[in-house]
Amino acid sequence: MKFNGKNVQVSAKAKLGKNVRIGDNTIIYDHVEIGDNVTICNDCVIGEPLNDFYSNESYQNPGTVIGDNSLIRSHTIIYAGCEFGSGFSCGHRVTIREYTKTGKHFSVGTLSDIQGLVTFGDYCRLHSNVHIGQTSKIGNFVFIYPYVVLTNDPHPPSNICNGPTIGDYTQIAVHSVILPGVQVGSNCLIAANSTVGKDFGNEVLIGGSPAKVLGPIGIIQSKEVENTPHYPWMYRFERGMPWEKIGYEEWLSNQTKKHD
Amino acid sequence: MKFNGKNVQVSAKAKLGKNVRIGDNTIIYDHVEIGDNVTICNDCVIGEPLNDFYSNESYQNPGTVIGDNSLIRSHTIIYAGCEFGSGFSCGHRVTIREYTKTGKHFSVGTLSDIQGLVTFGDYCRLHSNVHIGQTSKIGNFVFIYPYVVLTNDPHPPSNICNGPTIGDYTQIAVHSVILPGVQVGSNCLIAANSTVGKDFGNEVLIGGSPAKVLGPIGIIQSKEVENTPHYPWMYRFERGMPWEKIGYEEWLSNQTKKHD
Amino acid sequence: MKFNGKNVQVSAKAKLGKNVRIGDNTIIYDHVEIGDNVTICNDCVIGEPLNDFYSNESYQNPGTVIGDNSLIRSHTIIYAGCEFGSGFSCGHRVTIREYTKTGKHFSVGTLSDIQGLVTFGDYCRLHSNVHIGQTSKIGNFVFIYPYVVLTNDPHPPSNICNGPTIGDYTQIAVHSVILPGVQVGSNCLIAANSTVGKDFGNEVLIGGSPAKVLGPIGIIQSKEVENTPHYPWMYRFERGMPWEKIGYEEWLSNQTKKHD
Repeated sequence: MKFNGKNVQVSAKAKLGKNVRIGDNTIIYDHVEIGDNVTICNDCVIGEPLNDFYSNESYQNPGTVIGDNSLIRSHTIIYAGCEFGSGFSCGHRVTIREYTKTGKHFSVGTLSDIQGLVTFGDYCRLHSNVHIGQTSKIGNFVFIYPYVVLTNDPHPPSNICNGPTIGDYTQIAVHSVILPGVQVGSNCLIAANSTVGKDFGNEVLIGGSPAKVLGPIGIIQSKEVENTPHYPWMYRFERGMPWEKIGYEEWLSNQTKKHD
Repeated sequence: MKFNGKNVQVSAKAKLGKNVRIGDNTIIYDHVEIGDNVTICNDCVIGEPLNDFYSNESYQNPGTVIGDNSLIRSHTIIYAGCEFGSGFSCGHRVTIREYTKTGKHFSVGTLSDIQGLVTFGDYCRLHSNVHIGQTSKIGNFVFIYPYVVLTNDPHPPSNICNGPTIGDYTQIAVHSVILPGVQVGSNCLIAANSTVGKDFGNEVLIGGSPAKVLGPIGIIQSKEVENTPHYPWMYRFERGMPWEKIGYEEWLSNQTKKHD
Repeated sequence: MKFNGKNVQVSAKAKLGKNVRIGDNTIIYDHVEIGDNVTICNDCVIGEPLNDFYSNESYQNPGTVIGDNSLIRSHTIIYAGCEFGSGFSCGHRVTIREYTKTGKHFSVGTLSDIQGLVTFGDYCRLHSNVHIGQTSKIGNFVFIYPYVVLTNDPHPPSNICNGPTIGDYTQIAVHSVILPGVQVGSNCLIAANSTVGKDFGNEVLIGGSPAKVLGPIGIIQSKEVENTPHYPWMYRFERGMPWEKIGYEEWLSNQTKKHD
């Protein structure tokens, strides 16, 4: 019952790969390019026209790319100009505005709202209801948890739009706010309900309002393996990661060899 | 105009009670069982197939139960495997994932997101935009207010999934975070914007980040009745409660007699 | 492709102005009055019937007014009894409940949830995912940022419903909570992640949990103009404001003359 082709609209100017399934009431606009083995569920909009569409009669939709092997759940709206690498996974009712670009295996949860002009590296994961302000720059393997907000206007309202920069592997726990222009290093953990208003280096535990360094990341003990620090987390967690089954160490060593 | 039967899809493997109204574009999947006098508004999905559906050709949808006298507002998505007691009331754009089970008179507000494998007792109320992590266990008469998040991973990301446990009658005010595995007793009030990271007993006022006991629950004076504590709230509030018109005392005494 | 007239339902008891465009699957209920040059995108509901509709067979929908030159984006639900001045602009998946009244040029972002019986002055802007509790009273030129919650029940649950009052030009930064009945003056800035539990006067910087005065509003220096305070912001920001191109000073002087 999921893919009956009822009320599906696909622009003649869109390109669909092999084995693409599209749910009822979904609309694919001009210049959308969809890879192979992609599932787009019901009531989605892919390549939503930008604001200019409403007032400019000669409006042309910019291109939108959905990588191979992606799954987009129902009621999601993706604006034109976005590009997603392969293995993109998307919850329900997600809104992603124009010119958002992600690496491969990007995952975003239900109700998340990406404001556009944002870049993500590979294997980033946003949980439900994350808000990413325009011009945010996010590294690889960054996971962001529910109700986190990345902002971009230091003195609202102003004419400045300057999103935060988040380093590789950093984790941002629920309900934290990252203030405009802030740079957070790699391999950090930002604790729940923090307000991050200044820059931080690598491998630190960050928390509080205003947030400060609570210690090196290694002070957090694993609850799964005795007498072992939990972070860097890549040694303790592999579900869906490229080091699944081989371990982070071996994967990293393979990566290095590739670049030799 | 609300119930025209346009584009309604009901599986032949679903069972509908008497006097069931279904709005336009709503989909009812396999093995959904709907009680009597139920209204499901437009653009809902009931019994949404689990993730396995997308990759497993012999996928079978688990059963879903919607109790009698329920009202589900538009654009709501309820996954297969959920069970709701009678008198279920649901706002717009709610997402409830698989194997969520609630007692009777469960009420959940617009945009709330229940992540699945969650249990609720009777007469629980979630206001708008509440996020409940997997494996949370919530008692009876628990009310949760907007932007509250219950989490389940103590060191994200890890392989642990351990939601909080909330006791009967406890109230969780707006924007609070309840951290993984935390146990909060009955008859507590968690103040707005708290971060609850440890266990608490019964009948206490909890607040702050990190949250601590601010006093016994009785210290909060009613703003409606002079020189009277507001909590336990069951003596001051009865709208929609089973003690409406008879009072909590009498209802409680009736309950006790029933069990004698 | 945006306006094909597919599955559009417009009540015979609705009134549409000139040059009104309505997207697919959108429903316009009884006694909705839509001004000239209005665009309502796909999957919206305008004039959603109140709760009474479900149980009262002689239910009559109250009137709803959408001012001239408005743009309502997809999947938005506006309840009956609301009134919006001209130049109303609305994101995706917004929910606005009954008897909300706004001045002209009201703007509200994706996922915001206005609970009804709320009043806004002219030129207010809500960003994404703002939650406004019933009976809140908001002045002119008030901007509210993501995940802010305005509440109305001082001791949940109680029978009191008393939203905050926010003065002209005041800005409420992300993730702040404004507690019931609180009165905040004009020209204030409430910093990110604050919990505002008492009244504040005019022209102050407010922050913290619980929030207190951090200083006069003038202490914040502009990041755009050297050696100049950023607030009052009307001298530094004009995009979309009635003083665009002429400046706040001249606009204000024109306003004063008009009233002479």
